[in-house]
Amino acid sequence: MSQDTNVQKKKIVIVGGGVAGMTLAMALTKKKGNFQITVIKKEAIGSYSPCGMPFVMEGKVEYMEDIILKTTDFYRGRGIELKTESEATDLDLDNQQVTLNSGEVLDYDILVIATGRKPFIPPIEGVELDGVYTLSNYEEGNILNEAMMSASNAVIIGAGIIGLETAVAFVHNRIKTTVIEMLPSIVPQILDFDMAEIIQRHLKTKGIKIYCSTRVSSIKGEKTVSAVATDEGEFPADLVLIATGVKPNSDLVQEAGLAVGKSGGVVVNPTLNVEREGQPFKNVFALGDCVEVRDQITSTPKISALASTAALHARMIAENISGGDLKIKGYLSPSITVIGDLQVGSVGLTSHMANQSRLEVNIGRATGQTRSSYYPDNKLINIKLLAHDNLLVGAQIISEEDVKERINAIALAIKNKMTISELLFTERCFTPPLSLLTDPFIRALESFEQQKEKVED
Amino acid sequence: MSQDTNVQKKKIVIVGGGVAGMTLAMALTKKKGNFQITVIKKEAIGSYSPCGMPFVMEGKVEYMEDIILKTTDFYRGRGIELKTESEATDLDLDNQQVTLNSGEVLDYDILVIATGRKPFIPPIEGVELDGVYTLSNYEEGNILNEAMMSASNAVIIGAGIIGLETAVAFVHNRIKTTVIEMLPSIVPQILDFDMAEIIQRHLKTKGIKIYCSTRVSSIKGEKTVSAVATDEGEFPADLVLIATGVKPNSDLVQEAGLAVGKSGGVVVNPTLNVEREGQPFKNVFALGDCVEVRDQITSTPKISALASTAALHARMIAENISGGDLKIKGYLSPSITVIGDLQVGSVGLTSHMANQSRLEVNIGRATGQTRSSYYPDNKLINIKLLAHDNLLVGAQIISEEDVKERINAIALAIKNKMTISELLFTERCFTPPLSLLTDPFIRALESFEQQKEKVED
Repeated sequence: MSQDTNVQKKKIVIVGGGVAGMTLAMALTKKKGNFQITVIKKEAIGSYSPCGMPFVMEGKVEYMEDIILKTTDFYRGRGIELKTESEATDLDLDNQQVTLNSGEVLDYDILVIATGRKPFIPPIEGVELDGVYTLSNYEEGNILNEAMMSASNAVIIGAGIIGLETAVAFVHNRIKTTVIEMLPSIVPQILDFDMAEIIQRHLKTKGIKIYCSTRVSSIKGEKTVSAVATDEGEFPADLVLIATGVKPNSDLVQEAGLAVGKSGGVVVNPTLNVEREGQPFKNVFALGDCVEVRDQITSTPKISALASTAALHARMIAENISGGDLKIKGYLSPSITVIGDLQVGSVGLTSHMANQSRLEVNIGRATGQTRSSYYPDNKLINIKLLAHDNLLVGAQIISEEDVKERINAIALAIKNKMTISELLFTERCFTPPLSLLTDPFIRALESFEQQKEKVED
Repeated sequence: MSQDTNVQKKKIVIVGGGVAGMTLAMALTKKKGNFQITVIKKEAIGSYSPCGMPFVMEGKVEYMEDIILKTTDFYRGRGIELKTESEATDLDLDNQQVTLNSGEVLDYDILVIATGRKPFIPPIEGVELDGVYTLSNYEEGNILNEAMMSASNAVIIGAGIIGLETAVAFVHNRIKTTVIEMLPSIVPQILDFDMAEIIQRHLKTKGIKIYCSTRVSSIKGEKTVSAVATDEGEFPADLVLIATGVKPNSDLVQEAGLAVGKSGGVVVNPTLNVEREGQPFKNVFALGDCVEVRDQITSTPKISALASTAALHARMIAENISGGDLKIKGYLSPSITVIGDLQVGSVGLTSHMANQSRLEVNIGRATGQTRSSYYPDNKLINIKLLAHDNLLVGAQIISEEDVKERINAIALAIKNKMTISELLFTERCFTPPLSLLTDPFIRALESFEQQKEKVED
């Protein structure tokens, strides 16, 4: 091995420049190690906030350009080599080399796989028509944002978070909007049926039509879309958004012989090292949307396709590359989103997830206010809690305010394996403008019944 | 012992009808035990929200009547015997009897001491003048609210929470307001000097003048107050509020031979039973502002004079009277208040408290935003964290939003003895309208330095 400089820099190649890859690159620049960081990314821009796109369309944020967080020059100025509009086409783990679509071959000391996710597009007739969109990257965001300006009738296929956030943006732009969901209720990944109903009622007041338990049979039109045919009838559409979920972008690593799990994500150990034939690779990491993680409560393999998971992984790998030994064994995947006027938070298990893992759960529920009864601007808050063997294992919260940090607090409680009764007698702060002396969370804890939640399979 | 009915009811006498006493009485009505509940209280009203008074004066809440939570009829309708405008004058623990100022003697099976607190009035010349007020009960609230209407120049003695909340109410009513504080900084019970400065700057923009490290020498006037003389000069005043803190109302229990601690509060064991000559009384409880508790981190005896502590104690005693065995060993006393436009939260130790207990602490700090940089209505948030041996032991947070549940979450983290590095790599939820991908809390955790905070004694 030749040595060009006195101090050999450790070559780190990051495949993928989304939230995971760019957060890691930046975190590494703040570490003391002597690193030569290269990021291979498809997009021409430095970094942007994918979660911000629906809010641009809704008009809360003015321009798509506003959600560009950092320019390529910013990263290059910090010594990061950015190979934009590039893709890795081959990973050679034995020779520690990455081949790019340009033909260029990069040597690495440490490889990080941050290939993210891709939209899952169901095999529906007509998905290739003009006027049918997905919203999975900045370019697609720009295109959809533009298309929205001239649309009159939109159909969104899929009532997940992206689908519903975009539905709100569409009606805000005076587009007649219909959402078609195959499953019996909306946002099923994060909410039980009873909580989802609150969102559904709210969206109805905004003029959004939602059809659950409804199957799309085809997308109709010549060249350009004209309607969406479903088992509930045909809906006229000059714009269709496919928002039927995402899947890990793990083809490249599968080709390289790395283990890919049932969820489709790259298998990693608790330090986020990948594995081949059961053996961990100490110098190869994977993170974010493309990896398979384990649920903290049920140990079920899952994808935690959240920007927050990607950012957490990035900080963790930066530490582990710099000599740390950080491990995360289980994931609670706390999530928060804003749908219309409602903040919607979820953490840990839903009843459906518990049922799938044959875990019996008890339910605690409360609907209450966010401030003292006599204080103005009081908002309703809906809290649902799930417990197994008296241990808190999940929570869903909906309100116009005050949801996010409640979810973070409950994530801490679940992580620390706190019981319902411990939580009932834990100190909480109080002031009339911001809380109730007996908070709805306490009432939800008090309401735990012995009967188990019955879930329809 | 005679037995009048087939099923003898357990006689519970609660001495004091503030937040502690009334919350306990209500909690007992929801328990399955066969209780005869009597509450002895000074006020003529059922219950009110003492923490709400400054917000009535500020105009956020319209009338003093609005903060009356429940009428006497409400409680009586639930079978609670309310002896209003009454005081206990003697507790005979050996014969299980309470004597009232009316001469009436009540037998009890279980006695609960909920005598609360009283204002600490410093021995200043002129405190007895007309126009000098305290704000320690509903009646005083009514009087001060009325007096405020015709005042032009107010001096508030004491820059604690009540003093500052009231100062904001005064300037809102166009009263020239000066706050005199003996200690070097404001709200020293909950904030370190550097954090207190943020509040002080904010109050300055509201036109409130604050003099710290300033001693009141006398309150001047004939019959009616005209000025407050201090070592920083004389301040004209037609209204003076004494807000120099509170002390436990424990005279009665001291006379009964019960142990009273250094803090002036009634000594209780972890189940909240009182003690005499080192022996716990199984059938006598005390709670809320009148008891001495132990700090969770330093074990220092302290008063946790918070409505939230009183309400927690009430739920706990209701459980313990009904056969439970709930214990709380240490208190973190999480607190939240709204001072002007700022939410001010604190939990666990301040640097000053750590120093008094000779506990070395490291400091983590961050100032950041509450939302993604491109999102509108972003607010500043200031976070200060204290750690001892890598364990989080305290936090102070100031922002226009999002403080309360952060404090509750940090209380859970401290309670569970979480380390800085565990917290750094704990999952948190994210959405651009409500948070940052790298939250200021994470940046505060990252900023922990090895050097210790130097505190002036």
